[in-house]
Amino acid sequence: MSTIALAFDLGGTELRGALVERSGDVIARVSEPTMAGAGSDAVIGRIIALANKLLDDHPQAKVMGIGACAPGPLDPKAGIVIGPPTLSGWHNVPMIDILGRQFGLPVRLENDANAAALGEWRFGAGRGTESLVFVTVSTGIGGGVIADGHIYHGRRGLAAEIGHMTITGEGERCFCGNVGCFEAVASGTALGRQATRLTAPGDGSAMRRLSRDGDVSARHVVEAARAGDASARALVEAEARWLGIGFTNLLHLYSPDLIVMGGGLSNGFDLLAPGIRATIDERAMAAYRDVPMVRAELGDRAGLVGAASLILWEGEPGTALAMVQNEATKASNRA
Amino acid sequence: MSTIALAFDLGGTELRGALVERSGDVIARVSEPTMAGAGSDAVIGRIIALANKLLDDHPQAKVMGIGACAPGPLDPKAGIVIGPPTLSGWHNVPMIDILGRQFGLPVRLENDANAAALGEWRFGAGRGTESLVFVTVSTGIGGGVIADGHIYHGRRGLAAEIGHMTITGEGERCFCGNVGCFEAVASGTALGRQATRLTAPGDGSAMRRLSRDGDVSARHVVEAARAGDASARALVEAEARWLGIGFTNLLHLYSPDLIVMGGGLSNGFDLLAPGIRATIDERAMAAYRDVPMVRAELGDRAGLVGAASLILWEGEPGTALAMVQNEATKASNRA
Repeated sequence: MSTIALAFDLGGTELRGALVERSGDVIARVSEPTMAGAGSDAVIGRIIALANKLLDDHPQAKVMGIGACAPGPLDPKAGIVIGPPTLSGWHNVPMIDILGRQFGLPVRLENDANAAALGEWRFGAGRGTESLVFVTVSTGIGGGVIADGHIYHGRRGLAAEIGHMTITGEGERCFCGNVGCFEAVASGTALGRQATRLTAPGDGSAMRRLSRDGDVSARHVVEAARAGDASARALVEAEARWLGIGFTNLLHLYSPDLIVMGGGLSNGFDLLAPGIRATIDERAMAAYRDVPMVRAELGDRAGLVGAASLILWEGEPGTALAMVQNEATKASNRA
Repeated sequence: MSTIALAFDLGGTELRGALVERSGDVIARVSEPTMAGAGSDAVIGRIIALANKLLDDHPQAKVMGIGACAPGPLDPKAGIVIGPPTLSGWHNVPMIDILGRQFGLPVRLENDANAAALGEWRFGAGRGTESLVFVTVSTGIGGGVIADGHIYHGRRGLAAEIGHMTITGEGERCFCGNVGCFEAVASGTALGRQATRLTAPGDGSAMRRLSRDGDVSARHVVEAARAGDASARALVEAEARWLGIGFTNLLHLYSPDLIVMGGGLSNGFDLLAPGIRATIDERAMAAYRDVPMVRAELGDRAGLVGAASLILWEGEPGTALAMVQNEATKASNRA
């Protein structure tokens, strides 16, 4: 059996674990609800239990280390989950230190959007490019940038917080307190909210029928648009325009070789792409217009395989931090 | 005499040349109007004449190569000035190739804002940081990003086109055709335009007195605000807010250790800084708020010394492209 990494993707809702090969193939996968409200000690206890289960079920696996990803803000170099809004009670949790002590293995930690960007770049839609911007459009909007073969980290690993890039002066107030965040106008949540507002329970509209007269979600809008509903199509068109404005900014700011769109709303990529492209063609400066934009390929395993690759591809492009983290883990193990 | 580089900063208005030491000290400087309208052959002829003059005046100088900067879009790796709006008639001019053949010296080419960012990072306000975003606020808004000790280039060297980042849905149409570009609402030109609109020739206002009843420029606004004029102060406050919105985006997107503000409007940095800082404190997520913002230190020599350092600091951080360009120059010289 080839060398393998244990991988974890710690989401606000779901905690996923996997055994991943160097090729990016997932040979075993487990998941359970995160129950973030229980606090960091409880969740880390469950990560350890999942790890033990995966290891017990695959005694022959040659596990080289643990790659984990979690929501930001997160300091990948220090190995610390700083305090994500979706994980209540997490404040400066030293994940690398805790897991390193527990298993005596090298541990890497990365922001979930960065890990997904790395996964798509190494194994998915971004294979063969030198640089890409990965955009995940879902409840919120997150991003990860690969440049010159490395995750673009910036100070404390906090770069590419693209959801809170101001792109307009209008719309709903973002949870961060500002008006005009990319996420506040263009996330799946924003799209669902627009649709819910535009319709009413029992109005017989396609979107409300799909939602069984509950709140309309982005998924319902996409389904209704796909079925030809005019209101849903108009909403998808407006959504594509916001995405196009944001993507144009990303082109001007990062100048990637490729934009990869993932997240829940990428289920509607085929419907959104023409409008996004038209907006880019209208707004981007000429030298940026020929950059391709594609749908992510790895779905919800992008973060897992990206995190695993931090272990299995150590020393190769994309793992600039590996040695630093290794030293930190060793030092803490000695202490 | 220590080793030296010939440096050129090719602006839309002024063509500057210098002899620069490895320390960043400028030991000789010349300049003349660019007369961009005359086309690339004529301008390059004048660059060659200026170079010859500098070399003739300093026969003892040990010149290691030529570092040049010019407005973007520009491909630093290929050494080509692609076609800046401010240099009419320039289309894909192979600057490295032309100057390399002429002088038989290594030549490096860089976007002017990137070169200024590099200059401020090595010799100016950014010394000692690992990463910074340099923002030049003047006729337009340009930017350069230093990350992990290197200029952040992106595809074709086109990253950090921050002036055309959409930050609002309001305001004047930008020359690029869009509404809401950072440059369109926050450049010195935009500030002057606001002031001109708010006042009228002969109205006795402080700003019009300073402009001798002509159009009011950003400089006049800053001067009037410094003298206590209430209208000018309100304009400066609004300007600071736009800059703060844009700078907050730059923090979220690049997560630098430092923001350095240069360009003509940085003459009013002391007046603008409190409003910019208040806007950042209001809008940036907590983890980004403690990033310092300072005024550029090198004025109009930032680009020259940054370009020179591409030659004199070759092989050190910040010159990742040096060898590639060297090979390209050698290849073309052999041809």
